[in-house]
Amino acid sequence: MSREPFTRLSREVLVDNPWHRYCRDRYVQADGSDGTYHYVDMAGSVCAVPLFDDGTTMLVRVRRYLLGCDLYEFATGGLQPGDDPLAMAQTELREEAGLEASRWDALGTFAPYKGVSTEVCHVFLARGLAFVAQDLEASERITPHRLPLADAARLLATQQPADGMSLAALALLDRFRTHGAGA
Amino acid sequence: MSREPFTRLSREVLVDNPWHRYCRDRYVQADGSDGTYHYVDMAGSVCAVPLFDDGTTMLVRVRRYLLGCDLYEFATGGLQPGDDPLAMAQTELREEAGLEASRWDALGTFAPYKGVSTEVCHVFLARGLAFVAQDLEASERITPHRLPLADAARLLATQQPADGMSLAALALLDRFRTHGAGA
Repeated sequence: MSREPFTRLSREVLVDNPWHRYCRDRYVQADGSDGTYHYVDMAGSVCAVPLFDDGTTMLVRVRRYLLGCDLYEFATGGLQPGDDPLAMAQTELREEAGLEASRWDALGTFAPYKGVSTEVCHVFLARGLAFVAQDLEASERITPHRLPLADAARLLATQQPADGMSLAALALLDRFRTHGAGA
Repeated sequence: MSREPFTRLSREVLVDNPWHRYCRDRYVQADGSDGTYHYVDMAGSVCAVPLFDDGTTMLVRVRRYLLGCDLYEFATGGLQPGDDPLAMAQTELREEAGLEASRWDALGTFAPYKGVSTEVCHVFLARGLAFVAQDLEASERITPHRLPLADAARLLATQQPADGMSLAALALLDRFRTHGAGA
């Protein structure tokens, strides 16, 4: 078996639930010694950033059980293996923000929690927006809030704690608006 | 026992390791029904954003086992219960980036992975910088890279996947430089 640093030696799935797998790997550390790595294994996620023609966006206010507070965020959702990221972004924007979009652009990807999760989040810009009915799950409490994009950026950075994933999505949007896709 | 939505009914620690605890809660969902929540419980983390007088910063290039690639990032580290965030930020900047700072400002906090982890990351701006020896753990492969802040912002947003936590830290830095702390 290879002793190259960062090679996996073994993998155990300790917990398998409908949302993710919690795993323990044995692997080769940077110095060549064996190490143990506990992590969350996820197929990925999506984030939809809606932008109206008048320069407003739609945040969602989400009750976050783990933090014991509400957070303002862009609509996000988890992927299952085989899911198409764009189709899931369209679903999440419809269900959480009550919006459909006629024009979608991929803004890129980011890893929200590089040290503990395999998750990579696919970010999309949604334009050509129309209102539809929100459709929430039993576990969710989510309310949409429409406001100018600059105000949304301020709100996202000012709430404490801020939502890291929405700030990352905003950075990818800024990059797209300044330099175009893939710049 | 309270049936208020988002009340915890019970908590099991399924895995306890030196880095975090993996837990399963029973809780009251938004609609009042019982639900199950699997999550990572962490005391928190820190991120240090160094800024030299000449407008350059120091990123670290980190091998990320879970993503199978290197990421450019700001220096980060996990907290244990009772750790002081500022003291840990000073430690991480010294060990990972090889820098000490005479002036520190708190830029705020963000939750990197709101849906699956209790972690809140404390972000600090480090100025008055001096070079010291890097000091890595056996599990780490990290190299510092000094470059202008605008170039660093572009690199952080352009790499694919980007590092969500560094983009969030950058957003808090932008906010601080535009409006001052706590704006």
